[in-house]
Amino acid sequence: MAPRRKKIYEGKAKILYEGTEPGTLVQYFKDDATAFNAQKKAVIEGKGVLNNRLSEFFMNGLTNIGVPNHFIRRINMREQLIRQVEIVPLEVIVRNFAAGSISKRLGLEEGTLLPRPIVEYSFKNDELGDPMVSEEYIIAFGWATQQDLDDIVSLALRVNDFLSGVFYGVGIKLIDFKIEIGRVWDNDFMRLIVADEISPDSCRLWDMKTGQKLDKDVFRRDLGSLTDAYTEVARRLGLMPANTTSLKSATIN
Amino acid sequence: MAPRRKKIYEGKAKILYEGTEPGTLVQYFKDDATAFNAQKKAVIEGKGVLNNRLSEFFMNGLTNIGVPNHFIRRINMREQLIRQVEIVPLEVIVRNFAAGSISKRLGLEEGTLLPRPIVEYSFKNDELGDPMVSEEYIIAFGWATQQDLDDIVSLALRVNDFLSGVFYGVGIKLIDFKIEIGRVWDNDFMRLIVADEISPDSCRLWDMKTGQKLDKDVFRRDLGSLTDAYTEVARRLGLMPANTTSLKSATIN
Ligand SMILES: Nc1ncnc2c1ncn2[C@@H]1O[C@H](COP(=O)(O)OP(=O)(O)O)[C@@H](O)[C@H]1O
Ligand SMILES: Nc1ncnc2c1ncn2[C@@H]1O[C@H](COP(=O)(O)OP(=O)(O)O)[C@@H](O)[C@H]1O
Ligand SMILES: [Mg+2]
Ligand SMILES: [Mg+2]
Repeated sequence: MAPRRKKIYEGKAKILYEGTEPGTLVQYFKDDATAFNAQKKAVIEGKGVLNNRLSEFFMNGLTNIGVPNHFIRRINMREQLIRQVEIVPLEVIVRNFAAGSISKRLGLEEGTLLPRPIVEYSFKNDELGDPMVSEEYIIAFGWATQQDLDDIVSLALRVNDFLSGVFYGVGIKLIDFKIEIGRVWDNDFMRLIVADEISPDSCRLWDMKTGQKLDKDVFRRDLGSLTDAYTEVARRLGLMPANTTSLKSATIN
Repeated sequence: MAPRRKKIYEGKAKILYEGTEPGTLVQYFKDDATAFNAQKKAVIEGKGVLNNRLSEFFMNGLTNIGVPNHFIRRINMREQLIRQVEIVPLEVIVRNFAAGSISKRLGLEEGTLLPRPIVEYSFKNDELGDPMVSEEYIIAFGWATQQDLDDIVSLALRVNDFLSGVFYGVGIKLIDFKIEIGRVWDNDFMRLIVADEISPDSCRLWDMKTGQKLDKDVFRRDLGSLTDAYTEVARRLGLMPANTTSLKSATIN
């Protein structure tokens, strides 16, 4: 980190610095892991490196199929240059199978196939614990318009089709994921693009054969080594040599 | 093949037999390869086995994300049970990069990224050489309605997002592909579903790093062993042991 770079925001998992060009930011991936609204915390060596590389990989894939997103280029092992957006204060969650909060809320066994992919929203507010909100709430409070939400659902479902494919090809089930959406202006024309990150921190990923969890639930539920799980995801996607089993002394492609 | 089973249709690459239950068919994958409207022909040992397994894999993936298709279950190495449909007499082609006929027609170098995915249609008619047709032609001649075409485009683009993801995850670029669409009736309600096959016979697949072709162009353009190329695709998708390099004496998962 160049010392003179201005810090814009420090969150739970990432730090944002002023970017090298106007309208850009540098996103620094920390090793910090938090869960349950930051009641559980740890430093997991190497997590930031893995998520930086994995988010680059998924965002580039989205760019290839024409899903607009904030990724510009990776700078180094822990940082990437992103387009600065005005974040829509929502966590946009897409669920294919029940797990986590929907399982609790509706009494559904984890892993139950949902009748169709379900898009839901949490209001991004740490003090309130990111409460679930309906489209009515979102429109009433002006966090997004109906037109925004229509666009957000389209984006979210395209991301779901694409990521489902990526993981299906490497033997992983995409249970659910969360994205954030931001506004950008091109010649006064507002567009919504995918922002924040796409990584095992923001997805639930189960091995298709064994059901083994390869995502942040490993940390939330103390199921073993989080970096081993994320390394396995990166390895299957060809981002690390095939014989990599642990992050220690691994190279990243 | 049970001798008493009734043959419904024999095409260039597959045979359709009466199915085991009403409304079903058995789709038998032959080893025959044809190109340039069957002017070039060969028997490629093992191609049918690979395409049967690969089409199962892709159709199952589509089922997982809720894209309706004809696949019911695989019967054996060369046969699968499918839902009988009334085929819409179109080849529905989705192109991400220029190759083949669009390159010739528009003078675009093969591999040129298209401004966005392009959906186009050929009228399925061997005598005419499957001529390209516009939506106007399709509606005027009654092969499909405007509403059908809207549904077909939605299906085709979802298949594109999903398959792009599957291949992206294993280091392959999906240049273009062709699907066929069929009509089914559930309680007098007509639906359009994906039919025929999804395999390296119906896709253009380029290795992301080397540009090596892993699809039927290997046969069309005499670029080497077709089964080696298809085996490589199956291997990357985990359908064959990781050390498989050629179909000979390989096991299929
Ligand atoms: N392209 C972007 N432009 C501006 N802000 C972004 C962009 N992408 C993500 N953010 C915001 O940056 C922060 C990322 O840091 P993170 O540690 O995840 O924060 P938090 O603890 O608030 O979730 C989030 O507040 C997220 O909304
Ligand atoms: N589910 C289905 N129900 C009925 N016909 C189908 C179905 N799926 C594919 N077909 C048709 O079966 C034939 C498959 O055999 P193929 O060798 O590809 O034939 P062709 O030489 O006509 O392309 C095609 O004519 C295709 O339209
Ligand atoms: Mg965050
Ligand atoms: Mg055919």
